[in-house]
Amino acid sequence: LEINRGKKKVIGAADGKEFQVDYDKLLIATGAGPTPLPVPGADLPGVLMLKNLEDGRRIKSYLNQNPVKRALIIGAGYIGLEMTEALHELEIQVRLADVAEDLVPWAPPEMRAIVQEELKSKGVEIRTGCEITEIQRSGGGLRVVTKKDPIDVDLVLVGIGVKPNSEIAGAAGLELGPRNSIAVDKTLHTSDPDIFSAGDCADAFHIITGRRVWIPLALRANRAGWAVADNLKEDKVFLPGVAGSSVFRVLDVEVARTGLSPREAAEAGFDAVDAVIKSRSRAHGHPGNTDIHVQLVAEIGSGRLLGGAIVGKEGAAHRIDAIAVALMAKMTASDFFQCDMAYAPPFSPVWDPMLTAANQLLKKL
Amino acid sequence: LEINRGKKKVIGAADGKEFQVDYDKLLIATGAGPTPLPVPGADLPGVLMLKNLEDGRRIKSYLNQNPVKRALIIGAGYIGLEMTEALHELEIQVRLADVAEDLVPWAPPEMRAIVQEELKSKGVEIRTGCEITEIQRSGGGLRVVTKKDPIDVDLVLVGIGVKPNSEIAGAAGLELGPRNSIAVDKTLHTSDPDIFSAGDCADAFHIITGRRVWIPLALRANRAGWAVADNLKEDKVFLPGVAGSSVFRVLDVEVARTGLSPREAAEAGFDAVDAVIKSRSRAHGHPGNTDIHVQLVAEIGSGRLLGGAIVGKEGAAHRIDAIAVALMAKMTASDFFQCDMAYAPPFSPVWDPMLTAANQLLKKL
Repeated sequence: LEINRGKKKVIGAADGKEFQVDYDKLLIATGAGPTPLPVPGADLPGVLMLKNLEDGRRIKSYLNQNPVKRALIIGAGYIGLEMTEALHELEIQVRLADVAEDLVPWAPPEMRAIVQEELKSKGVEIRTGCEITEIQRSGGGLRVVTKKDPIDVDLVLVGIGVKPNSEIAGAAGLELGPRNSIAVDKTLHTSDPDIFSAGDCADAFHIITGRRVWIPLALRANRAGWAVADNLKEDKVFLPGVAGSSVFRVLDVEVARTGLSPREAAEAGFDAVDAVIKSRSRAHGHPGNTDIHVQLVAEIGSGRLLGGAIVGKEGAAHRIDAIAVALMAKMTASDFFQCDMAYAPPFSPVWDPMLTAANQLLKKL
Repeated sequence: LEINRGKKKVIGAADGKEFQVDYDKLLIATGAGPTPLPVPGADLPGVLMLKNLEDGRRIKSYLNQNPVKRALIIGAGYIGLEMTEALHELEIQVRLADVAEDLVPWAPPEMRAIVQEELKSKGVEIRTGCEITEIQRSGGGLRVVTKKDPIDVDLVLVGIGVKPNSEIAGAAGLELGPRNSIAVDKTLHTSDPDIFSAGDCADAFHIITGRRVWIPLALRANRAGWAVADNLKEDKVFLPGVAGSSVFRVLDVEVARTGLSPREAAEAGFDAVDAVIKSRSRAHGHPGNTDIHVQLVAEIGSGRLLGGAIVGKEGAAHRIDAIAVALMAKMTASDFFQCDMAYAPPFSPVWDPMLTAANQLLKKL
């Protein structure tokens, strides 16, 4: 497939025949593809990718046709962590390997420890700092060779990240953004005004840094698609950008974030400070009460909120949206601390954990 | 107890002895008290109030000492609805009576129906538009006489509202606010600069209308107490006000609100419109998926968000805080629609129900 921008044609081939399509406006919605595992044996049967619906069907069918007792998930991103839960529920012994030294590396140590504990307590073996060099057939199963001990399993799932499918855009000379995603403006035009891009292949502006970022997540992809439809004739919809809000569940723990981590804030040039607090998910003495950790990040001086993270067994996933709204509103920690959160004993302490975090953060600003 | 503002003294009597206390600064934190049920028999044993911790202990002790199979809760406010759950869990047959024609009258019909259905499906008998004229002893139990059929039960719980304990403030000539609450400014001073008031006895400014309101809830009471401590020597803490955010659980349903209902918005002089949508609590096909209803209210013209309500079996309670933050930030429906909410299949559809509501609301603005 190739775009001829001068002639406003898309030229391609299907079933051995060349075809040409003229366009007035063109949308590139090529999505993102999985990063392949660059080691020998990555193409063996029983080594499966984790990316799209078809991959999911392949995994399901493999599990139905083969006796899988032990699985290795390579890549502890949110997809890998969510698959851990799915396999654990099927009573498969799960091992989780990542080349990074820490799980959830953007989170503060208190939160990382909770994720780690949750996995360990459910029998998931974690291998961080794990460099895989080869995958071999071994008896009826697979041997994953690493720089340390080998790992013997029946199934390997690979979810080590995705990359934008931007080759066609790059070849057509369109401007590319971070990680070779397709650069678009706030009305979803690429550097060619007649070509739009939307979905996991395209970049976005970060609402905190104002810089281009590539954070391929479902809501933005969906929102951008709708915006292209609205903007086909004239620019009607303007997307301010993303905060990188995301959430996933690791077994019984919810992990949520939005905006910048302290490290990302520093990298973006902010003089930032954070507070991490531990509170409870419900009122004192309410049955079912569990720990909840909240981190808030703000800029020293202006007090502007830059990001937040929440980890806990309940209430983390939905609370993060309150912080996401505060980021969109460019709120300060002080304004956020004054927000009138709803309280009832089954849902939070009188001071919502987010307010407690804001209060501690204010002491550092 | 009496305040002599001229002499800056509090004069009272305890154990038959008069006492006087001089003050430089005085805090009135007298709270709120239950509205009594103004009918004969309201003082019979087995007719108990629902307001403070002591009432809770009395109810517990009554339940331990008496065989209670059938209870009537008078007043379907959030305290009454929460007690319904507590008694239902004790396998007591609960009847719920309120003089109003509707349960949760501020909510749109779709939401009211869900609360009603939830109560009915768990065997709670609802009597709305119920005027009680007398309570009588009847056999071993109580007969509650109404303008329609009488209700025979073993226990009557009364939670028909509260009123501010502001007599002492009124007698001292301090300015009173709505419902005779004690009027305070944003630094918690009453009309006398040396007298503060905080807690359920004091009023607050509503962040949407800018007007004084009396919405006695725990967070504001707590926040105001802290602010008085901070402001004793000089005004350091300024409380912008409340949005009236509240949440309660009715059996398995979460009911949450913040800001103004369409009716309250109209009464405050806003040209307001609302959208009510039904969405799902989780992604399509995710197990445990349930209905969730979201209402958003905005001002026609400016598009400013004025309020919201959420009802559902999960995720209603914590989502409401995102709307509360938007209200504090004076966000428009359009800005709110652009917020980057977190998505994962166990927690919401790709478009969070709040965004779906904002989208529908935008079509009406």
